[in-house]
Amino acid sequence: MSASSIAELRVTPVAVGDPPLRNSAGVHEPYFRRLVLELVAEDGTTGLAETLGEPEVLRLLDGAREALRHANPFDLEDLLRRARLPAAVSTRATPSDGAGVPAPGTFAGSAAAKAAAAIEAAALDLQSRLLGIPLATLLGGSRRSEVEFAGYLFYKFERHADAEASADEWGAIDDPSSLVRSARRMVDRFGFRSLKLKGGVFAPEAEIEGLRALRAAFPGHALRIDPNAAWTVETSVRVGAQLADVVEYLEDPTPGHAGMAEVGRRLATPLATNMVVTSFADLPEAVRTGSVDIVLADHHYWGGLRATQHLATLCATFGLGLSMHSNSHLGISLATMVHVASTLPEGLYACDTHVPWLGEDVVTRPLELVDGAVRVPDAPGLGVELDREALGVLHERYLSNAGRRDDVGYMRRFVPDWEDRRPRW
Amino acid sequence: MSASSIAELRVTPVAVGDPPLRNSAGVHEPYFRRLVLELVAEDGTTGLAETLGEPEVLRLLDGAREALRHANPFDLEDLLRRARLPAAVSTRATPSDGAGVPAPGTFAGSAAAKAAAAIEAAALDLQSRLLGIPLATLLGGSRRSEVEFAGYLFYKFERHADAEASADEWGAIDDPSSLVRSARRMVDRFGFRSLKLKGGVFAPEAEIEGLRALRAAFPGHALRIDPNAAWTVETSVRVGAQLADVVEYLEDPTPGHAGMAEVGRRLATPLATNMVVTSFADLPEAVRTGSVDIVLADHHYWGGLRATQHLATLCATFGLGLSMHSNSHLGISLATMVHVASTLPEGLYACDTHVPWLGEDVVTRPLELVDGAVRVPDAPGLGVELDREALGVLHERYLSNAGRRDDVGYMRRFVPDWEDRRPRW
Repeated sequence: MSASSIAELRVTPVAVGDPPLRNSAGVHEPYFRRLVLELVAEDGTTGLAETLGEPEVLRLLDGAREALRHANPFDLEDLLRRARLPAAVSTRATPSDGAGVPAPGTFAGSAAAKAAAAIEAAALDLQSRLLGIPLATLLGGSRRSEVEFAGYLFYKFERHADAEASADEWGAIDDPSSLVRSARRMVDRFGFRSLKLKGGVFAPEAEIEGLRALRAAFPGHALRIDPNAAWTVETSVRVGAQLADVVEYLEDPTPGHAGMAEVGRRLATPLATNMVVTSFADLPEAVRTGSVDIVLADHHYWGGLRATQHLATLCATFGLGLSMHSNSHLGISLATMVHVASTLPEGLYACDTHVPWLGEDVVTRPLELVDGAVRVPDAPGLGVELDREALGVLHERYLSNAGRRDDVGYMRRFVPDWEDRRPRW
Repeated sequence: MSASSIAELRVTPVAVGDPPLRNSAGVHEPYFRRLVLELVAEDGTTGLAETLGEPEVLRLLDGAREALRHANPFDLEDLLRRARLPAAVSTRATPSDGAGVPAPGTFAGSAAAKAAAAIEAAALDLQSRLLGIPLATLLGGSRRSEVEFAGYLFYKFERHADAEASADEWGAIDDPSSLVRSARRMVDRFGFRSLKLKGGVFAPEAEIEGLRALRAAFPGHALRIDPNAAWTVETSVRVGAQLADVVEYLEDPTPGHAGMAEVGRRLATPLATNMVVTSFADLPEAVRTGSVDIVLADHHYWGGLRATQHLATLCATFGLGLSMHSNSHLGISLATMVHVASTLPEGLYACDTHVPWLGEDVVTRPLELVDGAVRVPDAPGLGVELDREALGVLHERYLSNAGRRDDVGYMRRFVPDWEDRRPRW
């Protein structure tokens, strides 16, 4: 066995503090869950990855640990075969049912595809650390020195639902002035040049008012709104017409390919998605119907870093724009997004990130957002290191907060008769 | 500068003996031309690549040599930027003009894309040799232990046009019995389980007769015919109907997307292409019109090894089959095809190769075709080594045989009033 063969895969679930951020389905619970992977070579070199904290993914990764021992981290297909997981770049996912509307944070991608993607990401980080080159270089080389991100604006409650919960630094965000205040805070701190509003929370008129206030306060910023399919086709067209000069794109205004395609035919504003297109299998229908203009990639559930590169070529081939989706995440995912995004073709839109809402991390020095962008690190691998103490603390917290994300159920703590209805307006 | 930084790129044009193989445009000249790339690291480790011997590609590669000195062979994008060549995975190629009919061996892909692909291939071989792992592993890992090839049958003249030319070991191939004899020879020697006939040489009825003779002689073999767009739509439909139970696919029966799409609508037999789809930019039209069922990849002009992997994902996404095209080539291209093909998703058709017609090579021990397939080598890199003496001999020959492939012009040595008309029947 060589110095670079795999000694161990460690998988640590963590629970991370999250503000009560609202979306069309409900509201974020006090903690979001992630899995931290450490793929350790015989010589101690360790590749890192981070993925969604879903119990099925954790079970699959735990089940793969023994099979990966002594494997060659450079042979990705062999790792996945050993782990009995599908090839990372798979087009065999079931297409999303256009009629179904997943809650934000849940996706058609199977747990197996997510587990495969996480192992691929950890192995590629390990490879690049063993080689002493940045992950972006291993992935074919950067085409940009920095990756731009959009500031992710949310409406939110002042505090969590528990009686003893205290207000956070952001306070309530529920009207144009508090929205602009939160944006100002984000822009001052991180320098964002693009802002995205998670909409579908209030009636469309209130959110239009919010976007107009943002436009007045930030005349040069690119603006977007993502109501997560909260609107009917008619509402989408009406709102889109009113925001024609305000937003660079509308994200998932309405459910399904047919509805998106109709909105697209009636509006000049481009339509983005991370709901009707969440796997390769969804792309033929999108191309056939013209339902989307911009696809939001996400290596966590699209099959990994190489799959993200394949997706980018496919989008460029079919004249589709590309951006990146974000779930609540930590510094390992941020660094991974930066490296892979840096290798993608020209025309990448500013990527989503939840970093502004993050108060805790599992890396010692997270990559910094400066002027709304993260420089591609030139250190080996991801360019971030694990904070083992923080990992331990967040893992302890996970042990009493395991489970599955439930924005809808938690919303009933605030609004007892809450129902997840989409389209709602 | 590290031991693995690039010391030198050597580019050696060679001219290789070729029988007078016929196609719909004309006939192969006595020599085909290829370029052999050696990308040498400071420690002497050398990555190999081979590409089409076109003067423009040679000029671009020669022009890039100085810029690559001291570069990091692991940063592919940086190599291409230095060489002032387009990113290897580019979707910006001009779509092939559906009305135009390139001669076999000429393609829409630009010389710059071909040069970029050759540098990428040499750098990936160098990377894998520096790492001590097979190229297939570096490319993500094999999904199959061997790659199947199809025996490539040609009609041919008995000897070349020069008065002093002697007959080769194959003799004339111009009727069913000589065709079956050549196939028998190929199958006996290489064990092919698939056979492809380069058609469009004789009237369709004669070639149908040839395929029926092949079917009788090889009842279990997969058969294909590629007339290189020599037939009208009506002829293609008529021939296709007569061959419905004989061939697994028809390759480029007729020119252009519209014609191919009409043939496809009227026949159950799948249609393959390396003429209407030769770059990513051609794919949207193919998907929209349904003009093709199977795309023949070719890393030499599709942008390289990673681009070939992207193409495979794209084809799988859109339900298109995949095979590999071949120009007359040497053992470096064969090994490269084997490594990249081994990484592609399930369902790859047996790939094309000109190996049976090859009497000379630039590698010391070419990979062997056994039972119609090549095992993926487990040596570092490509698993083949340069035969420097042979390279010198073939380069000497190039010096008095430089130029551009001209099947049409050479055909006039046999048939003075020859014209390249397609469709001809």
